[in-house]
Amino acid sequence: MNTNLRVESLELHEALQGKLTIQAKMDVKSSKELSLVYSPGVAEPCLEIKNDPNKVYDYTMKGNLVGIVTDGTAVLGLGDIGPKAAMPVMEGKALLLKQFAGIDAMPICLDTKDVDEIVSIVKNIAPTFGAINLEDISAPRCFEIEDRLRKECDIPVFHDDQHGTAIVVAAGLKNAMRIVRKSRRDVKIVINGAGAAGVAILKLLLTIGYKNFIVCDSKGIIYEGRPYGMNAEKELMAQMSNIDAVGGSLEDAIIDADIFIGVSAADVLTEKMVKSMMTNPIIFALANPNPEISFENAQKWGVNLIATGRSDYPNQVNNMLAFPGIFKGALEVRATDINDEMKMAAVHAIADLVTDQQIHDGVIIPNIFEIDITDHVAVAVMRAAIHSEVAQKIITLI
Amino acid sequence: MNTNLRVESLELHEALQGKLTIQAKMDVKSSKELSLVYSPGVAEPCLEIKNDPNKVYDYTMKGNLVGIVTDGTAVLGLGDIGPKAAMPVMEGKALLLKQFAGIDAMPICLDTKDVDEIVSIVKNIAPTFGAINLEDISAPRCFEIEDRLRKECDIPVFHDDQHGTAIVVAAGLKNAMRIVRKSRRDVKIVINGAGAAGVAILKLLLTIGYKNFIVCDSKGIIYEGRPYGMNAEKELMAQMSNIDAVGGSLEDAIIDADIFIGVSAADVLTEKMVKSMMTNPIIFALANPNPEISFENAQKWGVNLIATGRSDYPNQVNNMLAFPGIFKGALEVRATDINDEMKMAAVHAIADLVTDQQIHDGVIIPNIFEIDITDHVAVAVMRAAIHSEVAQKIITLI
Repeated sequence: MNTNLRVESLELHEALQGKLTIQAKMDVKSSKELSLVYSPGVAEPCLEIKNDPNKVYDYTMKGNLVGIVTDGTAVLGLGDIGPKAAMPVMEGKALLLKQFAGIDAMPICLDTKDVDEIVSIVKNIAPTFGAINLEDISAPRCFEIEDRLRKECDIPVFHDDQHGTAIVVAAGLKNAMRIVRKSRRDVKIVINGAGAAGVAILKLLLTIGYKNFIVCDSKGIIYEGRPYGMNAEKELMAQMSNIDAVGGSLEDAIIDADIFIGVSAADVLTEKMVKSMMTNPIIFALANPNPEISFENAQKWGVNLIATGRSDYPNQVNNMLAFPGIFKGALEVRATDINDEMKMAAVHAIADLVTDQQIHDGVIIPNIFEIDITDHVAVAVMRAAIHSEVAQKIITLI
Repeated sequence: MNTNLRVESLELHEALQGKLTIQAKMDVKSSKELSLVYSPGVAEPCLEIKNDPNKVYDYTMKGNLVGIVTDGTAVLGLGDIGPKAAMPVMEGKALLLKQFAGIDAMPICLDTKDVDEIVSIVKNIAPTFGAINLEDISAPRCFEIEDRLRKECDIPVFHDDQHGTAIVVAAGLKNAMRIVRKSRRDVKIVINGAGAAGVAILKLLLTIGYKNFIVCDSKGIIYEGRPYGMNAEKELMAQMSNIDAVGGSLEDAIIDADIFIGVSAADVLTEKMVKSMMTNPIIFALANPNPEISFENAQKWGVNLIATGRSDYPNQVNNMLAFPGIFKGALEVRATDINDEMKMAAVHAIADLVTDQQIHDGVIIPNIFEIDITDHVAVAVMRAAIHSEVAQKIITLI
């Protein structure tokens, strides 16, 4: 990282001593006001909620409050740095939820990596929150944690590192496919990286109707029964991809591919590999901070459609396009889950914000700072929640 | 409760939809700002904290953040109403911590009553917080939970229902004893109620030098080996009180008592009982909302020194005199515990805010709305934390 950004970030964080603050919505200046917000008056909403637990949404902050839960094991590209060191990222995420969706969000950084303990903790703190955002929990534990919590909690549990990324990739891909005029059923897609994002991208694109995938990890192509470097989730991925069960390296996999999606490491794509792809290749190079192929090399080697995780190039795959609107939509209708229908609705809402003219110019992903995307996504997500019957509060949408 | 207060409280809570909101301390209006508060710049404070975990206090909100943890089992006088119904009270408590001490506080309402689970959850969420306030957890579980957490956490864990009440009672008693000119060693004290507050009052007054106690619960006087209605904590209380191991009823206990402290139920004190006490009796009648003896009856039956939990009479025993300053003091010096020395410091700080003239007029407890008590208590608590070597950050106090 450049020295200026480093110094500026440290100075800013030290000056703020936390990027969030908790504010009271009213002042208490007299015994009378105290008797309303606290004892004895506060007993009244308590009793109302005791008699009808749903009223917790009417009388408390729960309905607009997201818990951002991490165990600090997969923070940014920094790996397992622990719960305290994860705090600045969780505060940052909460700040973004506030600014872009008006949602109150609170970091909860956990001092355990044990799956059972994490599930138990989140389940037991759930009464306080309207939704839970799992963040920066390493694979494959993140899959089991999310699956179990989605079943056991009556509020939405959403692992943004998986689905946020997958949703934005799917939106960008939808627009890219319009440019190259290929069919979802025919294209060959190589996903490099079998962590949280890779798994979620595979699952979501399958749901959307893409058929032909090869997934690679650092040991090469994943196939059923591969005798090394597998786990339960990779076995599942092998079953969902690679119908011919071929082995080999990324270099083998990418031959004749139409689409490359990297959630892996810097500079793994060589000129030879890129040139072995089909015509009009589409590349999502999402390694952070340095992508699998630089924007400049992509241009030089004839790739016109490239998206990265970087804000200094066009087509940034930024989760902020998705998660603020998804949580806003889910909370607004008191959804009990964030299901596939709601994720798909977010994909289309994001994709549709790119104009025909922009698509013509090679733009496939909207810029977060140019448009108000949150409400657009939120409305689509609400509608999907209502249609798929996970909404507990039905509101009329135009 | 009167109908107006009921309606007003419900309307206020519904209008606010939560008495707290989480605010970002800065706006993010550009990619540049985003790169400072989130990826990639946020990696810098993360790495600093990874290398030196204490820096979490410099770069995050932890140092000024209190988790208000409850399981909803002993909320106000309402009993076990569950975690959702407890939310309005926890938000109220957080609001008071903000307004009276500038502390960020967050409700965490737990969907479990299991002691091991509660201990595990609080221990595991502790990295996020600078201190934990346990609230409205029923006795005797609250004792074990607090004891274990104080040992296992590196941040202060404070059960306000125990110690907040005990500290304010001890402060009021200090001033009352100046009026009646009796000696701590000689007075007979009857505590009616063996829940969280009763136990804490007994322990704190013993620490201060009071010697002679009888504790009653709803089944009468507690004595060692009482064959009914005992638990581990009551056995301990029996050992700390009632040296002659007498049995009997509250009516028996109160004969010749100098001081009655009720944390029990409305109207348990009769005229006959009050008149059986020593001359110049001191009464703390803390049952909520209706005290063990009404202010009017106390006056009628010759009691001049009476404190209650009510704000509409003089001498309100209000935890707000204690907990905001205690947490502020503890956080300010990054204390690892809130120990007896700090509690005692709070007792004296609160007592000393009543002027000689006020004491002459029968005032023994300061009024929260008349003076700025928080900083006064905080400074005393900081000094005690530094002297007793639980402060991790030494600051110079005048």
